Amino acid sequence: MEKYVTTEASKIKRGAKRASYDKATVFQILDDHFICHIPYVYEDTPISIPTIYARFQETLYIHGAMGNRMLNSIASLPQTSITVTHLDGLVLARSAFHHSVNYRSVVVFGKPRVVISEKEKNKALELIVEHMAKGRWEEIRVPNEKEIKITQVLALDITEASAKIRQGPPVDDQEDYDLELWAGVVPVKTIYEKAVPDPDLKFALDTPTSVKKLTENDK
Amino acid sequence: MEKYVTTEASKIKRGAKRASYDKATVFQILDDHFICHIPYVYEDTPISIPTIYARFQETLYIHGAMGNRMLNSIASLPQTSITVTHLDGLVLARSAFHHSVNYRSVVVFGKPRVVISEKEKNKALELIVEHMAKGRWEEIRVPNEKEIKITQVLALDITEASAKIRQGPPVDDQEDYDLELWAGVVPVKTIYEKAVPDPDLKFALDTPTSVKKLTENDK
Repeated sequence: MEKYVTTEASKIKRGAKRASYDKATVFQILDDHFICHIPYVYEDTPISIPTIYARFQETLYIHGAMGNRMLNSIASLPQTSITVTHLDGLVLARSAFHHSVNYRSVVVFGKPRVVISEKEKNKALELIVEHMAKGRWEEIRVPNEKEIKITQVLALDITEASAKIRQGPPVDDQEDYDLELWAGVVPVKTIYEKAVPDPDLKFALDTPTSVKKLTENDK
Repeated sequence: MEKYVTTEASKIKRGAKRASYDKATVFQILDDHFICHIPYVYEDTPISIPTIYARFQETLYIHGAMGNRMLNSIASLPQTSITVTHLDGLVLARSAFHHSVNYRSVVVFGKPRVVISEKEKNKALELIVEHMAKGRWEEIRVPNEKEIKITQVLALDITEASAKIRQGPPVDDQEDYDLELWAGVVPVKTIYEKAVPDPDLKFALDTPTSVKKLTENDK
């Protein structure tokens, strides 16, 4: 399986047995979510901001208003990172110490690149909308020139990535298995509920295909 | 309502009408989740790491192994921040440009403090377990001296915080309401599924109260 090369920045030290650098694993975690957290530094204070992203091959796209502080801050960095986290379960052990969560997370590293070309910008915006709801791009009014102009798009061409995954039951200290205490996992799931049409819709319209697909296949 | 004072670091510029600095709002967002993202800088590269947290009054607690790179990196900073994000819905507008998400997020700022006292450490670990599953602390083996010793606990006494909330239907450009295009919101919910007992349980035990409560009241 194709893997990312790791450096000190991306190599997972704690819980190394949960780490993976396989491209397929990294891409799967990225494709199963669309909200990431982006760290930046504002006057020596690290800040993490949630935003929407999309992946195309080995590039992640994020976007925001021109003048967005986070985007402007990371645009000129030689390297930054983006984190995606899925919470999959509470791991309730016999001991407090071994309480944990089941999760899939990935940190991808790369050099940010401001997307200048109107074509790539438009493609990135399509990817982002499609990543939220597949098929949606064909159902909507696509961006006009002005909207593309006032939108900043940043690409992160992935150079390194590290995934971390915990699954399965609690792992307690050997002697604790003799304690008469319950242990187990409470699975956590993110579901899409029935769509709520905009109360300001002027037309009687069926729920579009992209939306139907979302609520049929929970993410 | 009591509010946090804002500085340039915490003041929300983009989407200022979605911002809130009310303590009650900030606390509610913090209390409704238990996974946060913590930004730090490793050799000039910003990295964001997901971890469990708990709140006690105006203090957040996080923990990890002694030697945890993220904890060690932020421990000595004069100020850092912690972000908590809830995804509440997909906002599917008529135009690509106004696609968005409904969410509640908060960035809290403060000076990190390494918790030295064994008593406060133990209390923080209790708060963290209780934040995952209320009532769990009484059902488990609490940390022993060795476990407390090898665990690092960091407190963040909150000095500033900014919440950002988007709710409700899409908001399109006025002229787009005349387009015969569907728009609406797909609500996103995080649910707890039925607990899966550890297959290595040696005793026939009822599901404990804390776990029952979780699956009854979805978060």
